[in-house]
Amino acid sequence: MSRGNLLYAQSGGVTAVINATASAVIHAAREHHIKVLAARNGILGALREELIDTSKESAAAIRALAHTPGGAFGTCRYKLKAPEVDRAPYQRLIDVFRAHDIRWFLYNGGNDSADTALKLSKIAVEFGYPLACIGVPKTVDNDLAVTDCCPGFASAAKYTAVSVREAALDVAAMAETSTKVFVYEAMGRHAGWLAAAAGMAGHKVDDAPHLILFPERVFDEADFLARVQATVARVGYCVVVASEGVRGADGKFLAEAGTVDAFGHAQLGGVAPHLAQVIKDQLGLKVHWTVPDYLQRSARHLASATDLKHALAVGRAAVGYARKGLNAVMPVIVRTSDSPYRWKIAPAPLEELANREKKLPTHFIRDDGHGITPAARRYFAPLLRGQVPPPYGKDGMPRYVSLRNVAVDKMLPPFATG
Amino acid sequence: MSRGNLLYAQSGGVTAVINATASAVIHAAREHHIKVLAARNGILGALREELIDTSKESAAAIRALAHTPGGAFGTCRYKLKAPEVDRAPYQRLIDVFRAHDIRWFLYNGGNDSADTALKLSKIAVEFGYPLACIGVPKTVDNDLAVTDCCPGFASAAKYTAVSVREAALDVAAMAETSTKVFVYEAMGRHAGWLAAAAGMAGHKVDDAPHLILFPERVFDEADFLARVQATVARVGYCVVVASEGVRGADGKFLAEAGTVDAFGHAQLGGVAPHLAQVIKDQLGLKVHWTVPDYLQRSARHLASATDLKHALAVGRAAVGYARKGLNAVMPVIVRTSDSPYRWKIAPAPLEELANREKKLPTHFIRDDGHGITPAARRYFAPLLRGQVPPPYGKDGMPRYVSLRNVAVDKMLPPFATG
Repeated sequence: MSRGNLLYAQSGGVTAVINATASAVIHAAREHHIKVLAARNGILGALREELIDTSKESAAAIRALAHTPGGAFGTCRYKLKAPEVDRAPYQRLIDVFRAHDIRWFLYNGGNDSADTALKLSKIAVEFGYPLACIGVPKTVDNDLAVTDCCPGFASAAKYTAVSVREAALDVAAMAETSTKVFVYEAMGRHAGWLAAAAGMAGHKVDDAPHLILFPERVFDEADFLARVQATVARVGYCVVVASEGVRGADGKFLAEAGTVDAFGHAQLGGVAPHLAQVIKDQLGLKVHWTVPDYLQRSARHLASATDLKHALAVGRAAVGYARKGLNAVMPVIVRTSDSPYRWKIAPAPLEELANREKKLPTHFIRDDGHGITPAARRYFAPLLRGQVPPPYGKDGMPRYVSLRNVAVDKMLPPFATG
Repeated sequence: MSRGNLLYAQSGGVTAVINATASAVIHAAREHHIKVLAARNGILGALREELIDTSKESAAAIRALAHTPGGAFGTCRYKLKAPEVDRAPYQRLIDVFRAHDIRWFLYNGGNDSADTALKLSKIAVEFGYPLACIGVPKTVDNDLAVTDCCPGFASAAKYTAVSVREAALDVAAMAETSTKVFVYEAMGRHAGWLAAAAGMAGHKVDDAPHLILFPERVFDEADFLARVQATVARVGYCVVVASEGVRGADGKFLAEAGTVDAFGHAQLGGVAPHLAQVIKDQLGLKVHWTVPDYLQRSARHLASATDLKHALAVGRAAVGYARKGLNAVMPVIVRTSDSPYRWKIAPAPLEELANREKKLPTHFIRDDGHGITPAARRYFAPLLRGQVPPPYGKDGMPRYVSLRNVAVDKMLPPFATG
């Protein structure tokens, strides 16, 4: 009396807690004797029929998954064309799902993945194949519509705020004879959520970070340099947090400001080294800069307890929705109170999330455009709250798990994914 | 019946635990009713008579200092000329010490600071001023002679190994359709200690980091690119850890490889973006890179318990040596056993430490020049061991302390420090 299998896949950039969601999905499904297959490298694995049998993993491994960063089954950046343009991949997915008796598809990703899950749910109806598609939220960018926040964001936000505070203490100590300006580059191509979270590093007017550059505001170099100079004069040093998505009046990313190497090749981005160069050239100040890059989204050692709870809850809820027969929905986080912090999980139609993007609200940005407001602080504080360090070994290293990832036998001919 | 005051100063780059040493110094001195003055911004504060009265700080603040990164009294990069060249600063220091009844000078720094403390101890004898000068070790570079390791290093090493492991899990998940190579830049201008510590992130032959670039080995671009390509072919991705001090056969730092911005200005360094560019240009692979910079030496949130114990112990020992009348010595860490890890503190003459530099030993570097040996692992494992997180507040942020830093009244005319 098999009710069919559940397919789980991870999509897009990974986070410190996406595996916690995977862990919750598998755990909840096991409770109800539902077998979970995982697609290797997201939707690509489904297309290629590269499926992993998670029932081969021990209960201990699935528990350890909840404190392991990265994406345990691999992920992908791969966007399906619309079915009107290319129907073949959708046909293939239905074929694979039918071959492996997959009745539930849980796609753990951002707004692109929500779109894919939505399209697939519609196609399944056309094919007359019984399939429930559930999106499961995840992104450090925090740019999904509807949900109050996205699992993965709060841990990256905590990493950002803590790192900026710690580095600022370093700069403060060095400033008299050495570094006067420090530039921290935060992820966020289109929305300044992580840059804004850095604002939690300080409280008083002259606390670091002194200047935050948001992609929601046009960068004005002369104004920026004047602010840096004034801060150094007043405080003794200046800590700048720049979102990688900062653009000038010409609409171009600063990180693509035409820097070339000795051979004249365009250089790989980095808004922080660019700003450091401008400050050094124009103000003659000693500058240090950092680009944490993947460190900020994989820092499970500094994950927020709230984030972990969210990541587990959306995974559990997704399985619950699947069992109840919901389709084309995503479990989202609904905040019901800032203080005390209260929240719940509710289903939202994928239609309302697919391909939409949530910018940092205007009332979170200080009037001068370079800091955050009390409203932003009320939003961020409960998200950063609580520590949930992984277990550590005798070598002082976190004990992250590697799954066995046992492949399911293929039943279909190959399919070219380009 | 004052026996005089003790002057404590911090020098050079700060660490995650230098304030723990300060905390231990102040705590130990208080136990013996010795007043501790702190120089603002290292030796500069002594020259300028900018002294801080630490007796104005509460016991709670001094305790909190032990979990606060940065340098609480400010530090400096300022090298005194030899007394044969310029005797005036030494005369001034003796004047300041005499004015404030300073009988003990504890200088918390690296080999430059050991040199300064040593010179000062000799000058005091010439002046007939009773002064004991004790060096107190500190540096994330781990390059001090004599001592088994330097307080500050182990926490930066733990940060490095944990960050590389976490980022590697991220890259492994992304590699199928996105990032194939990740480059992590570690501090260490002259010695590859921190880069080597990254080796603790993996155990098996194909675990990240796949390639470590040490300043102790000449960089060969063609060989490097061949290794990156072979690793990507075999493993699917490649994680590179590069010491900032890596040099080519011409002896030039890679980070100064002639990169210019759009205006033709030489660009600020960064061996990671340089290598990323080379890999992208020559191999056509997608690359991400990180330059953690100050984050790696201020990450108190991830400090090693062993490091904290060392930092406290050298502070306590320094006060003990001062009380016993030792002069021109430094408390160093002597390892007596790897497993179980055993160590003790012993006094070493500053003569043996001043201006010397300890490179990574050859037997710590794998024969292929790109990884670490079992001997290195035996050295690093106990250093990274144990977690000592700071207390956190309800806003999810570490509760780092800001001292009041109450100035001592000046008694002397100003002195120009240039």
